[in-house]
Amino acid sequence: MTVRYRLGCELSYEVKAPTVFIFNLEVARLLRDHGLVERLTVTPDLPRRTYTVPDIQNRYVSVSAQPGPLKIVYEADVTLDVFRADPETIGETPLDAIPLDIMPFLLPSRFVPSDRLSAFACREFGDLPKGHGRVTAICNWLYDNIDYRRGSSNEQTTADESLLLRAGVCRDFAHLGIAFCRALNIPARFVSCYAYGLEPRDFHAVFEAYLGGRWWLFDGSRQANLDGLVRNAVGQV
Amino acid sequence: MTVRYRLGCELSYEVKAPTVFIFNLEVARLLRDHGLVERLTVTPDLPRRTYTVPDIQNRYVSVSAQPGPLKIVYEADVTLDVFRADPETIGETPLDAIPLDIMPFLLPSRFVPSDRLSAFACREFGDLPKGHGRVTAICNWLYDNIDYRRGSSNEQTTADESLLLRAGVCRDFAHLGIAFCRALNIPARFVSCYAYGLEPRDFHAVFEAYLGGRWWLFDGSRQANLDGLVRNAVGQV
Amino acid sequence: MTVRYRLGCELSYEVKAPTVFIFNLEVARLLRDHGLVERLTVTPDLPRRTYTVPDIQNRYVSVSAQPGPLKIVYEADVTLDVFRADPETIGETPLDAIPLDIMPFLLPSRFVPSDRLSAFACREFGDLPKGHGRVTAICNWLYDNIDYRRGSSNEQTTADESLLLRAGVCRDFAHLGIAFCRALNIPARFVSCYAYGLEPRDFHAVFEAYLGGRWWLFDGSRQANLDGLVRNAVGQV
Amino acid sequence: MTVRYRLGCELSYEVKAPTVFIFNLEVARLLRDHGLVERLTVTPDLPRRTYTVPDIQNRYVSVSAQPGPLKIVYEADVTLDVFRADPETIGETPLDAIPLDIMPFLLPSRFVPSDRLSAFACREFGDLPKGHGRVTAICNWLYDNIDYRRGSSNEQTTADESLLLRAGVCRDFAHLGIAFCRALNIPARFVSCYAYGLEPRDFHAVFEAYLGGRWWLFDGSRQANLDGLVRNAVGQV
Repeated sequence: MTVRYRLGCELSYEVKAPTVFIFNLEVARLLRDHGLVERLTVTPDLPRRTYTVPDIQNRYVSVSAQPGPLKIVYEADVTLDVFRADPETIGETPLDAIPLDIMPFLLPSRFVPSDRLSAFACREFGDLPKGHGRVTAICNWLYDNIDYRRGSSNEQTTADESLLLRAGVCRDFAHLGIAFCRALNIPARFVSCYAYGLEPRDFHAVFEAYLGGRWWLFDGSRQANLDGLVRNAVGQV
Repeated sequence: MTVRYRLGCELSYEVKAPTVFIFNLEVARLLRDHGLVERLTVTPDLPRRTYTVPDIQNRYVSVSAQPGPLKIVYEADVTLDVFRADPETIGETPLDAIPLDIMPFLLPSRFVPSDRLSAFACREFGDLPKGHGRVTAICNWLYDNIDYRRGSSNEQTTADESLLLRAGVCRDFAHLGIAFCRALNIPARFVSCYAYGLEPRDFHAVFEAYLGGRWWLFDGSRQANLDGLVRNAVGQV
Repeated sequence: MTVRYRLGCELSYEVKAPTVFIFNLEVARLLRDHGLVERLTVTPDLPRRTYTVPDIQNRYVSVSAQPGPLKIVYEADVTLDVFRADPETIGETPLDAIPLDIMPFLLPSRFVPSDRLSAFACREFGDLPKGHGRVTAICNWLYDNIDYRRGSSNEQTTADESLLLRAGVCRDFAHLGIAFCRALNIPARFVSCYAYGLEPRDFHAVFEAYLGGRWWLFDGSRQANLDGLVRNAVGQV
Repeated sequence: MTVRYRLGCELSYEVKAPTVFIFNLEVARLLRDHGLVERLTVTPDLPRRTYTVPDIQNRYVSVSAQPGPLKIVYEADVTLDVFRADPETIGETPLDAIPLDIMPFLLPSRFVPSDRLSAFACREFGDLPKGHGRVTAICNWLYDNIDYRRGSSNEQTTADESLLLRAGVCRDFAHLGIAFCRALNIPARFVSCYAYGLEPRDFHAVFEAYLGGRWWLFDGSRQANLDGLVRNAVGQV
């Protein structure tokens, strides 16, 4: 199934002092995001530096702004190829079959100290049948046990803290889902995206788990439809 | 029901440098511990300083040891008045009826950061009926969710860390039980004790919750019979 | 030298739901606070429960308020006996001479994890000459290394976090000063007080260290004159 | 100046259960490591999977071992081109000139929570003249303030903890140096390496800071000569 989305964002700043901005607004040029037509305008029209990360295809644009107004507008039309499969048929990948370039997504990171959540993950999910269903069980647990509450976390909140707080926003649900997956030897990574129908309109955060040889999207916060997500970034976070 | 216990301990040190020891081995002189006959010997027979804490009745003895062997032997016979009541009849004490001298046992402490576990406690136990049964539910949760594992913690481990580790020793079960109680406005305190039948023989740690106007013993680790505990110390910890 | 102070405070609430308040506003009845004339009024005139902590003499008053306005006014006249001595003559008390009832003020507590700051304290202050001057050196270090900044901490901030943040309010300066003292085997405790001349007017937090057989006030934040402090509470905190 | 090194390592395991090993022993194929002649033998001669990370050139080799002995031997001859410049001439790179692919090395990571050490870094090093000398000042501070002590840290120890502990091993010195650099907007990354003359013989950990358009090695632990380091891995860590 393919669906065509029009998406975009508009950011306005009143710059007080000379500032280097790095924006990561453009959709990632991944396999499933094709037919891309896009436009990024910066006002004033400052010189830009751009960078696309190899493999994961995050795109960055940097500008050096002087004091005064700064406005960024991004618009894109993208065709999303929604890939579906019977979850029952999607297994976990044994360690010796996980590609070595995927291995970093098993490691703990700043906001996902999966090494500190290993015992918790094993006690809660260690005995479940392996496969796509186990990650779904993790998402269900998140939905049942963590409150979605604006303002409950900040930019330094880590997955272990969210677990104690029993609350968070989409970013924290993603951190915790990734932590549990990594603790169970399932590669997982953070996904920032445009989400169709999300209210209020904002960037959304979900996560991907590597199962059966490819990345699958998951969202423990159940804030948006997985079929309507267009990624602007993935990362170890 | 009354039971008479003979208990004691023997500690041997090889002191390397002049050291001030503070021992807390003697049983607390609480209401339920009567008929006490006891003997504390220190070899060599050093001058002692002693102190009994008002109210909670912990007893301390301090000696300044010089290099060489040091041996402490404590023996006591004590009659324990086991008090029992139908748990169904034991309610929680409303905040405005908790005696003000009990209030400190609602506060967070070094190893019991109950303020950081408030959300967790409320999500797990907040909706249960109030009373003795709610603290029993906490103990059952601890038994079901935390592994008793020697060496899994150290002298700096706090209740929130034990919760993430999903493992601990008796001390950690007590910390976590106290944390959940305090988070639910149930005063709770740490109890160090001699435990009849404990294997291997050692001091045991449990906790007390203040319910229906008195302190009740609880042990989430289920390592020993509550009727066979003789306290040597209680504390905020 | 004696100085007579008139002090007080006024607290106004709009109570939304039945609430148990515990106030700790009255000055502690310590040796140096005499000639006390005071008045505490609660409007409406609710039934009160009161409690004075043995030894440390903190005084608490509790009321159960119904929805509606609540106002507490406290006024006191107190004569403060300012005790002075040559700091050079005030030594640290050896461990085997510290009274056993003072020992708890060597232990770590919720906001003062002195066990985690032991190495830091020993590296910074371990080689200084023992005595009143060493605690003054700690206060000077705090003043030189920690920024006084409103809003930089909250009610869960601990001394180790303040050390990393390099910022705090009076409470955090006190926590950190206490932590360093305890780590050096100097008993120390938190002091909440009325402070003459403090701007803006508010309760102040300082700390006391036990030196030469008595408690001495210290204030690493240098926000108020030590001679103008009237304590309403001391604690392990 | 070029120097030719012969280096290697030998690892022996007694495998108890089927295990996937991922080794990162081979020297990185960086610009300055040329004339490389190397040999990696695995006994038994298991099938290998290999991976070289784009850009940073870390090399990984993975084998699936069955129970029994496993032995890995690596030997290499490598010519190291020691690059030198007058430190006075090496400046920090302004944010708007740092290549975007270098930017991730400004971000906090699992063991380098530079966001939590920002205030500390700015207070200690914020006012120093910018450039290579500032990173040298950081290394001098580490050497003067942190004790090199085996066993003082473990595989979960983070830079903020090392700062409080005032102790660590080479890995912790690197973590803390990286944290201070990133907090000051100097890109920095972890370097694992073979170190000429290191006693006892082991892998060494140092760090690189991005200054004047290239990466420069630093070692706050002063355990080995910077000119005798051959990298096997760099990373965000």
